[in-house]
Parts: sequence; structure tokens; C-alpha cells
Amino acid sequence: MSETVKLSLDEIRDLSLSILTKSGFGPDHAVAIADTLTTCQIDDCQSHGLFRLFMCADTIKAGQIDGHVEPVLEPSDNAVVRVNAQGGMSLLAFEKALPVLIEKTRTHGIAAMAINRCFHFSALWPEVERLSSAGLAAMAMVPSHSWVAPAGGTRGSLGTNPLAFSWPRRGKDPFTFDFATSAFARGEIELYRRAGKPLPEGVAIDKYGNPTTDPQAAMDGAMLTFGSYKGSALSIMIELLAGPLIDDLTSLESMEYADGAGGAPYHGEILLAFDPAQFSGGRVDENDARAERLFTDITDQGARLPSQRRFAARARNTERGYVEIAKTLHGDLQALAEQAQAR
Amino acid sequence: MSETVKLSLDEIRDLSLSILTKSGFGPDHAVAIADTLTTCQIDDCQSHGLFRLFMCADTIKAGQIDGHVEPVLEPSDNAVVRVNAQGGMSLLAFEKALPVLIEKTRTHGIAAMAINRCFHFSALWPEVERLSSAGLAAMAMVPSHSWVAPAGGTRGSLGTNPLAFSWPRRGKDPFTFDFATSAFARGEIELYRRAGKPLPEGVAIDKYGNPTTDPQAAMDGAMLTFGSYKGSALSIMIELLAGPLIDDLTSLESMEYADGAGGAPYHGEILLAFDPAQFSGGRVDENDARAERLFTDITDQGARLPSQRRFAARARNTERGYVEIAKTLHGDLQALAEQAQAR
Repeated sequence: MSETVKLSLDEIRDLSLSILTKSGFGPDHAVAIADTLTTCQIDDCQSHGLFRLFMCADTIKAGQIDGHVEPVLEPSDNAVVRVNAQGGMSLLAFEKALPVLIEKTRTHGIAAMAINRCFHFSALWPEVERLSSAGLAAMAMVPSHSWVAPAGGTRGSLGTNPLAFSWPRRGKDPFTFDFATSAFARGEIELYRRAGKPLPEGVAIDKYGNPTTDPQAAMDGAMLTFGSYKGSALSIMIELLAGPLIDDLTSLESMEYADGAGGAPYHGEILLAFDPAQFSGGRVDENDARAERLFTDITDQGARLPSQRRFAARARNTERGYVEIAKTLHGDLQALAEQAQAR
Repeated sequence: MSETVKLSLDEIRDLSLSILTKSGFGPDHAVAIADTLTTCQIDDCQSHGLFRLFMCADTIKAGQIDGHVEPVLEPSDNAVVRVNAQGGMSLLAFEKALPVLIEKTRTHGIAAMAINRCFHFSALWPEVERLSSAGLAAMAMVPSHSWVAPAGGTRGSLGTNPLAFSWPRRGKDPFTFDFATSAFARGEIELYRRAGKPLPEGVAIDKYGNPTTDPQAAMDGAMLTFGSYKGSALSIMIELLAGPLIDDLTSLESMEYADGAGGAPYHGEILLAFDPAQFSGGRVDENDARAERLFTDITDQGARLPSQRRFAARARNTERGYVEIAKTLHGDLQALAEQAQAR
């Protein structure tokens, strides 16, 4: 990062709240979104921090989203909590259903949350880490837009379909990962295009289905999944579990729904949560030790656990009480705050 | 395949039952194993069909396993069915717990099966397909032995850790995949070694942690995961969910437990099952159509869904009423039957 600006943790949250409120989000949505952006920014997760305020403002400006709509929890006596975001952003729906998911997981041992009819722009790791903070293991999946070709295919059918997982570690940062099943992030291709740099081999095809390293040809064509046919199979599983299983859109349908409009995609999300106490017959300490031994065996050989850079940033930024963001981003955010005000 | 022998579906099952019984498996275990081997052989899944009788016989011959032990279902009123295989093969435990898993899934929407203290040698797809045959979606995971290095590592910490998934399709073969999270199958490395062929790049490291294409150096070193750090993260998730979560061994511990002995590894297994009717609020037909549209979009562009070769073999072999196996395998199996008899 070249020139940076220091923002305290309160300043991040206040700036976010201010922009969201001025853009047209009601207080409940603004708080849910600002809290998540702050969580990401504390971890120096630039792609899903304050930067996402532009997408939030765009989505509401395009008239796609109701900034005040209240998510509706559907009552259930089974192990599935369904929450209808009613065309709002996903995060308030998640917040509303989270206590129910935790309670259901502790009751049933395993439980799921289905978020329906939501606009979605956020990283999944803050959500699975809310569950691991409560001592539960958790998995989350979402579709996106059909930018990604299946293995052996010639055009986009699948979303970038991230999978996130978090495992609680007492007194330590959790074991967490959150990765796209596409070989490359959509936003990265755009960065390569702007920089005039060729893409790595094996991440994209052009509109004729041929391999390409040209970013523009990739944008006009499709991305590939990571890990060839295995990554492709995993991505299809995510389409099914976070789409048709929960009565919500596939990435193909989400793309059609957006019909070329920018902003956040509209679809569903699924989270699974697991209570180690119930699964292990109460032997949590012995099994925590078993998991820790695996983590130690991995780090002792010089390999890194996922998310270590993020946790290091969290520790550093929390300790010093501020984060650094690019001065250009800060300037753009201030301009956004003024524009939103003027609207 | 060079010279082959034709076996009717009854002959496959009878030959399996005969070898298993003579080797020392009680009738319940013999039936559970023979049924799975027959299921695999009908699909021309050679690696997990009759060929596995050698591993079953070896495991019992080494005195590791009790061929008569009865799996014990632990009573529960939550959404987790735990079954203790008590040191027997996993398959009878699976059979015993399957009706409970199906019932719990229909009751709770989502449910899990944890199989503990089992020897494990089988493919996971026959199990997830039992659930998709019942109209449920299902996922299965197992650890194995710590032959696989984490991303950035220099030695084995992880198992080959397969992930299987099946999605029900009415009137059609299900959408099913079952893949190892290692880049290469352990057995394939052995085949390359025997053939004196170098391995592909990127599938293994030697005992010093350096990349190698030499099969023997790979056997002495470690395998790598598919998909670099993403595959590695997924593999660690499988260790956690199919190990410490369910109070059972990691691949590291399973390897220590075996202490160099051959035969099937000893550990646990987890299955997750999802009821589309409950997750979708009863809108199964609309959502089936949505999933079918995705499958069609994938196959229309010339890409294949996973398991298509297997389903084609199933249709062909079921239609003609026999399978073909290599004459050499058939000879070896007859010798095994005689040896087992003589013991």
C-alpha cells in the first residue's frame, strides 16, 4: 500500500454507518452491514471491508434492494432455521437467525440455516467465525453469478461459489478457511485487465471455450474452477445445497435475475453448524487435544494454517487500535458519503 | 482389460460371500460387505469391487478385526445417530444406522451419522447413493492414513480424505461424486512404480519435502492434495469433521494405530443427510426442475457430470446380467477362496 490513512475501529464503523444510512439503509441493516465491514477491515481483509460500501450504495441506488425491509424468520420445530431476507441484504437476516441456529445446533447436534431472497456481497468467514466463537463448527456456502465453466465445459454455468469452514479452538484463533471454488477471483481478473497483465494459465477460457490468458477475453468468456473436475464437482454441490435444496436461485438464475445490472447478486445461502459436545458424546477436551495435535503437526513442518495472515492483522490492529487503508480509498469513501448525502 | 471372465450378478455376490465367510466374517458382516462389493462391481468400479476381498481377507488374517462383532447403535433423541462398529468393518454399522439416519433426516430436515471404531476400505458413493435413492441429499467423509502433506508442508499429516456427495434426481441416476482430496490415488502410485513410469508433476514430494516424480520416492515421502492450498484446507476440514468432531482418530493417529500393518485403516466416518422437502418448505418439484436445468446447462455444453461412466456401466451390466472382470483377478480370487478354506 502506498499512502495510507489511519482509522480507529470506531471510525471505520461510524464511516460505514454514515454511508449506509445516507445511501438509504435503515438502522438495523446499516448496523449489520457496518459490523461485518468493520470485522473484515480489522483483519485487513481489504476486498470485503470498507471497499464493499461502493457495492452496497450501487445496489440500493439501482433500486434493486429495499434498505428497510425486515427479514422474516419462519417458525420451525426441526433442525433447519429458514429466514426470508425479503429482498434485503443477507447480513441482517443472518443476525436475526443466528441465535436460533446456535440454539437448534445445541439441541439437535447438527442444524442448518437457510437464508432466502437475499442480496449478498459479504465474505463468509465472519459468519462461520461467529459460530466457532460459540464453540460450534460451521460451514457456509453461497452461489453467485454463472461466470464459471464446469470442467470440460465451454461457458459459464456455475458461480464462484465459495465454501467457508470454521472450527473452534479454545483460547486461540479458530481454524478457518473461506475460498472461492473458481480458480481466480472475479475482481482479480479486472485488476489484471486494468494493469494490462496476462492471467496465469488455467484460470479462464474465452467465449469460444478455448484457454486464454487475456483478461478481457476471460471477462467475455468464463472462469474455470480450481482443482479441475474435483473443484467443478464441489462447485456443483454448492449450487445444489445453497440453491435448489433451500428453494432458491442457482447462479444461472441469479445472473438472469440481475439481467446485466451491477450491484450485489441475489440468491440464497446455506450454513451448517455442528456441536462437538453432542457429536463426541461429551468428550470435547480429548478431541480438542486431538485436533490441536494435527494443527501442530502441520505448523511444525513449516506449513501454514489458513487465515494466519488475517489473524496476525487482527491481533496487530486490535492492539494498536487502528487500521490503515489506502488514502485513495479513503478519499473515494468521503466522496461517496457526500454524494449519498446530496441524493 | 485383456482376457476377461463373465460373472453374473449372483455369482459376484456368491463369490464374495464365500470368500468373506471362509476368511472369518460372520454372516451379517459378510452380507453387508458382499452387497457393497457387488454394487461397485456392477458399476465396473474395479478398485472398490471384488479386488477389495484381498484387503478384507488380509485385515482379518492379521488379527486386527473381529469378523463377528455386532455394531452398537447409541440411542439419541437429537439429529445425530452414532454407531459404534466396535472394531469391525464399517459397512454393517452403516447398514444398521441407515434407517435411523433416514428417519432422523425426515424428522429434523438435516441429520448426521457418525460411525466410530471401524475398519474402512470401501468407496463412499454406494453409501451416499443409498440416501439419494431415499430422496435425500447426502455427503460423506472419512480420514485414512497420513500419507498426504498439507500445502506448503514437507511430510504426511493428512489422509487421502475422500468427500462424496449425492443428489436425488427423480427417474434418473443421481448426481454423485466421490473424490480423494489427494491429487493422486495411493494405489495409482504403486501401479506407476510397478510399471517403472514417472508420476505426473505436482502430485508428490520425497522424504526431504522436495517435489518428485519418482514413484518410490513418493511412497517414501508424501502425496500432495489436489487444488493446492484449497484442497489442503478441505482435507483438514475432513480430518476434523470425520475425526475429532465425532470422537475418533485423525489420519495421523490411524497411521500410528496400524503401526505399519497392512489391511484396512481404522478410524471413523461421518455422513450428513438433507431432506429437500423440509429445506424447501415442500417445494420439491420446482426445485428439482431448477437443479435439472443446471445439469442440462452443463451437459449441453459438452461437459460431463461426475459418475457418468459408472452409470453407463451399471445400465449395461444390469441389462445384460453379467459383469466382466480380468481373468487374472478371477484366478487370484479362486486361489484366495481355496487358501481361506484351508486355513
